[in-house]
Order: sequence, then C-alpha cells, then structure tokens
Amino acid sequence: MKCAILAVGTELLFGHTVNTNAVYLSRQLNSMGIDVLYHYAVGDNPDRLKELLHQALKDCDLVITTGGMGPTQDDLTKEVVCQVQQDQLQEHAPSMERLLRHFQKRKRPMTENNKKQALLPSRAIVFDNNHGTAPGFALTFEERTVICLPGPPSEMTAMFSESVGPWLAEKSSEALHFCTVRTFGIGESMLETKLLPLIDGQDDPTLATYAKEGEATLRIASKRATKEEAKQAVEEMLSRVREYIGEYIYSTEDQGLAEVVAGKLIARSITISCAESCTGGMLAEKLTDVAGISAVFERGIVTYSNRAKHEELGVSEQTLQECGAVSPQTAKEMVLGLREKTKSQVCVSITGIAGPEGGTEEKPVGLIYVGVVFDERAEVFELRTNNKNRQWNRNYTVLFALDKINRMLDNRDVE
Amino acid sequence: MKCAILAVGTELLFGHTVNTNAVYLSRQLNSMGIDVLYHYAVGDNPDRLKELLHQALKDCDLVITTGGMGPTQDDLTKEVVCQVQQDQLQEHAPSMERLLRHFQKRKRPMTENNKKQALLPSRAIVFDNNHGTAPGFALTFEERTVICLPGPPSEMTAMFSESVGPWLAEKSSEALHFCTVRTFGIGESMLETKLLPLIDGQDDPTLATYAKEGEATLRIASKRATKEEAKQAVEEMLSRVREYIGEYIYSTEDQGLAEVVAGKLIARSITISCAESCTGGMLAEKLTDVAGISAVFERGIVTYSNRAKHEELGVSEQTLQECGAVSPQTAKEMVLGLREKTKSQVCVSITGIAGPEGGTEEKPVGLIYVGVVFDERAEVFELRTNNKNRQWNRNYTVLFALDKINRMLDNRDVE
Repeated sequence: MKCAILAVGTELLFGHTVNTNAVYLSRQLNSMGIDVLYHYAVGDNPDRLKELLHQALKDCDLVITTGGMGPTQDDLTKEVVCQVQQDQLQEHAPSMERLLRHFQKRKRPMTENNKKQALLPSRAIVFDNNHGTAPGFALTFEERTVICLPGPPSEMTAMFSESVGPWLAEKSSEALHFCTVRTFGIGESMLETKLLPLIDGQDDPTLATYAKEGEATLRIASKRATKEEAKQAVEEMLSRVREYIGEYIYSTEDQGLAEVVAGKLIARSITISCAESCTGGMLAEKLTDVAGISAVFERGIVTYSNRAKHEELGVSEQTLQECGAVSPQTAKEMVLGLREKTKSQVCVSITGIAGPEGGTEEKPVGLIYVGVVFDERAEVFELRTNNKNRQWNRNYTVLFALDKINRMLDNRDVE
Repeated sequence: MKCAILAVGTELLFGHTVNTNAVYLSRQLNSMGIDVLYHYAVGDNPDRLKELLHQALKDCDLVITTGGMGPTQDDLTKEVVCQVQQDQLQEHAPSMERLLRHFQKRKRPMTENNKKQALLPSRAIVFDNNHGTAPGFALTFEERTVICLPGPPSEMTAMFSESVGPWLAEKSSEALHFCTVRTFGIGESMLETKLLPLIDGQDDPTLATYAKEGEATLRIASKRATKEEAKQAVEEMLSRVREYIGEYIYSTEDQGLAEVVAGKLIARSITISCAESCTGGMLAEKLTDVAGISAVFERGIVTYSNRAKHEELGVSEQTLQECGAVSPQTAKEMVLGLREKTKSQVCVSITGIAGPEGGTEEKPVGLIYVGVVFDERAEVFELRTNNKNRQWNRNYTVLFALDKINRMLDNRDVE
C-alpha cells in the first residue's frame, strides 16, 4: 500500500508548529509495511487542500490527513474530503452523543459551533476520539481511502494506536523490517564509501546513509512476505555491515549515545560524575534525561569560572595561570579533582572554547579537552571542531565525551 | 512572492528525522513577507521529486529544497532540479577549491564521491557552505526560482542567514511585519479567550495563538505597503494586547525564557549559580547556551544524590531524612548553601520528582520545589505538574524556575 500524509493548518506554514504528526505516522505506517511516499502540509485553504488531495490520490491508495477537524470556521478538512471522495456530511448520532457527554462530564456549556464536529461523511467508517472532541474517519471512493485525523498530537496518536492502526493492519499484506544503525566518529561520505561493496547492486535489504548533527546513521530495511523473513534478511545484512564499520557503531536500535552510556552504567551499577566548563551542564542533562539514572549519577559540577574550577575541583591556580583554563593540564586536574571529591567510578571533565567569541590563533574556537577516568584508567582527549557555531560545538563535544566513555566502558580502543 | 518548501530525504518519510528545516525556513520567509503555501517532503526518488517540483512551480514563484545535496549516490536533488530548470551540471571551480581546502584543513582524505559536491548547474548563483561541504544555489528559469540548500540544519540555517536571506530580501516587494509574543503561566485557550475582544473581526494586524511545550505564544502580524506601516500597526496592537495579558508576557521578540534571563543577568552584571536535582543540569545548560554568559555564570551543581546535596550544599542529614530530598526545606537549604558557597547574587535550587517512577501518593511524579535567592529576597515555590512524562516535567520545571528568576529580576509579583 502506498500512502501520503497531509497536514492541514496555517500554523505549520508559519513555522509555529513542528509537524511531529508526520513523524509519528511515518514510523507507524512503515513498521506496518505501508510505504510513505509523500508528506504534504497546506494551510486552511480549501482550494489548495482539494488540489493536493487529488494530486496525492493519483499515486497513493491511502492519504492520511491531520488537522482542520475542529469546531471553528477555518476547519474545513471534512468538507473538502467529501467533495473529493464524493460524499456528503450528515449528523453522526453516536458522535453527537459522545460530544454531549464530553461537555456534560466537564460541566462546561457546549457552544453551537461544537456541533459541527458530529457532522461526518455518510459512508465514513468513524474512529472515536477518546482524548478530545473531534472524531476521525476513513472514507473510501474508487478503491482509494482518505483517513482524516484530528491535529493535536495527543488525540491523533491515541486514535491511531487504538483504532486506525488495527483497522489498517487488516488491510495490509507486505511486511517491512528495518534497523537503524547509529555511528559516531565517521562522516556520512566515508561511511558510504566503506559500505559501497554492500550498497552496490543491493535491492533488498536496502542500505541508506544519512547525516545527523555530528553523527552518521545507516538504515537497513527489508520488505518481504512475512515479518520474520524481513527481520532475518536485515539481521544477516547487519552482521556483514559490522565487518566494515563495526568500530564506529554504538547502537543498532536507534538509541542515542547518552541513552546507550546511561544504560550501561545503570546495568553495571557504575557511578558517574561530570565536571563541565564550556558545555555548561549539557552532558549531565543528557545523562539524567534517562529514567533510572539516579541510581548511578552521583554529581555534576558546572565550573564556568576559574574560581569554581579551583574551589570545586582543586585545579591549581598555577595551572590555570600558566596553561590556561582550556588546556589538557586543566582537563586532567578537573577530572582528578572530581574523582577525589566524588569517588565515582567514571569521572568526566570538559573544558574548551564553544564560541562564537573567545578564540585566539593558538587556541581557536572549537578547541576542547575532555578528561575521562574509569577505574584505573585516565585519559585526556583533544578535540578540534573547526566550527564557529556555539550550539554545534557544545552538542558535538558532549557526543565526543560520551563516545569516549562508551569505548572505555567496553574496554575498546579510544582513538 | 509565493513559496513552497520541499524537503528531500527518505529518512523523513521513515519518520527518522523531524523536518525542522521547514519550520526554520517558514519563519524566515514569512518574516520577509514571502508567503509559504506548501511544505512537501519526498524520498530520494528522482521521478517523484521531479513531479513535485513541477507541481510546486505551478503555484509558486519560488521553491526551496533542503537535502539530497551530499556526496552519496542517493543525493539527486541537483540532477533533478537541472532537468526541471533546463540546465546542466558542471564543475564549479571555487567550490572545488573550497572542498579541497576543507579536507586538507582537517587532514582527512577526500573520498572520490565528495567531488560530486562541486558539480553545480551552469547558470546557478552559488551560496558557499561555511559549515560543511555541500554548497547551495539558486537556479532561475522562466521567472521561477528553485533554491537548493543542504539538509543538515546547522549548514542550512547558516547558509540561509548568511547568503540566501539577504539575496531574497532584495527580490521581495510587499512588507510583512510580525511580532511573536511569548508568555508563560497561561494556557492557549485562556490566552485566546482573554484576547477575544481584540481577535474578533480583526483583519490586519492578525492575531494567532499557538501552544508550545509548556508555553502559549501569540503572533501579531501585519502586511502593508511599507515595512514602516506594518511595523506601526503591529506595535499599536501590541500595546493593546499588553492591557489584557501583560502580566504573562516575557518576550515580544520571540526570545526564549533562558535567553531573556541570561540577557538581563549579563546586561546588569548579576552573577548566578544553580543547584539542580531532578533537572540534572538542564537549567545550567539552557543558561550557558547563551553566548557571553561566562561573565556572570558562576557555578552549576547537579546534586542528584543525597550525599551530594549534603557535601556540596550543606543540606542537613536531618532535613533529608525527616522532610525528604523533595521538600521545600531541602530546596531552601540547597539554595542557601549554594549562596553561602558561591556568593552569587542569584542562586537557584531545584528538587523534585521528574518521573516516570519514584512518585508516591503524598509526593507524586511532577511535584517540584524551586528555591530562588536574589540579593535579600529568598523564596521557595511549589510546582505540581500532574504529568507523568519525564522530559515534559524537566522542561517545564526549568521554564518555571526561569520565570520566577525573571520576575524577581524585574521586581515583579512572583505568584
């Protein structure tokens, strides 16, 4: 089955809302073996919406719309879909009852315009909204189906998982399986070059590389008659991929580096503390974003000032003066001071110049030192990013530090 | 000028990547008075891309593509755009030189597939990529322009702000002015209800409300013959808006709360330190994301464990035992200990239960205490979010704390 996802709402075109609905639906549909060919977004404009629907239905058996289902005048999705799919709106008694109950339960008056939400196409298969007021529906005409879902993500996702997904699963035949391989320390072009022997002439499973901020990711996907066959084909390809780029892989389950590292720390009850200068708490924040980390995360210290580096971590004033705050010596004294203070098994220090200002010829923006201690092993790493963007430098530095921790936890090569 | 934004990349259709490029470009283009009519996303499929380009160019004078510009085999945007805009690719000598320098500087070998990135349409206006390897370009045919930009957001946004935006600004005629009013502490529906007297029957300026994670935002927009007229209309409306919801407004320049607070601290040379438990460094990270903060950001301490709260901040063992780590007493001792230690003018403490686990009937997930000291004023605030989502709770807590700091810096009411 081939599908397009069509979001309706002027707020998207103003850039006020991120289209997370398209992300959610894409993942769900792909996992069910339904090909997503297009994402579209259009404003609350019936003519353009109508044209896009016609366009989408040329290539696709299925179009899923989100948004434009509410009670107000600019909510016009249902009207337009009726035109395209040759049907008419009429009051849907069970939906009207649900609406009335919804407002009664909340002891709020139901304004007249809300009644519009119980108007549905006469031939529609209706999906109840258990988290809001606008029901969804599927409307088929000449073997092509349009499914209309409400715009708020919490309503849309619940409706999909509760009703729409199961309804679609019955209709779908093929099965897709895919695996997302995440790497650090290798660029996208080098990744592809190394994998060329596997990519060239490969029909199924397919391999596709893409760049994320500071990372390169590989997707291995297979579409077969059954889920089991697809899964096996992906797994066989993955083991071949490992032969070529295994050293850069940190997750084959689309987990982020922080999640991978935190998972290992929690599973092995290894305590961790971090001392950050230029990343300002980002490493601590990313690690503590993982539920359950409190069992092992001992302490984080953001030592932005020299005074803080001295008072909190015992970095000597001589080192700060002679070598500077951004130096391997300072990174080392930071991490050793942190270890002395916290006794955590893993200690990490970060000091560097995130930019955009503060660089010199000798110590340019993007120069970072990372210290890591794990049990008996202590290392200081130098990173030069060649980048002036503060956010990028901070984010990349945290990935760099996490990668080193990850390698040390695995007792792997750290270079 | 009417515009469509077209993202290229199978990863979008798999739901692996969120299309933040469309959000950024939509905001930029709208602010320049360019109407965005459509967002499209399509996979690495030349036929479908070609059809979408033809479709988009029917309604729009301008199509901006993102992605598919890299060195690998599935990067095909340039080839397809050349077909649609009737041009041919040829080596662009300055871009080839930049590419060679890029790899030399990083002391990394340039793989053969990278050379593809210096192939550009012969009539193209080229935009340099100062943050990556793939240049962008504009290609005009029969008065319709296609602009192709790289996919990675850091490269795309830099290229747009440095080169593409100024180039487009010269071409645009109508003038739009808008102002994004950011609020905290009021929901979207209540915001709209309070502003109804201003929204009803209003043609220009228009008012539109949007919900962000934990915030509600209002956009006031006017389109007039000149930029000055539009600006004046927006400013008059803004002063009326202030009469209704002034107490909730923290920025009228679309700045985030962290940016607003950091800006005030830097401008007034007020030092700050923070001690965080459940937010794990997120407050420090958000503040230190602002360039120039090092002048005032003294220290951040992530005291996840009770031991760290005691050792770092002097929270008494009795308090931790009798009142618990999540209590107003602990928040208060944390913030006073931090003040004692750092002497920073503003000190903030956060302790709470972010979830998803760890809640009890008496102290549920989402219960947070925030302590703030500013000069002689010391306050402890209680927050109950009624939410089980860890990320949401952490993010909202940081906003809540920043809002309190912001109000105290302004000497405003903190409730």
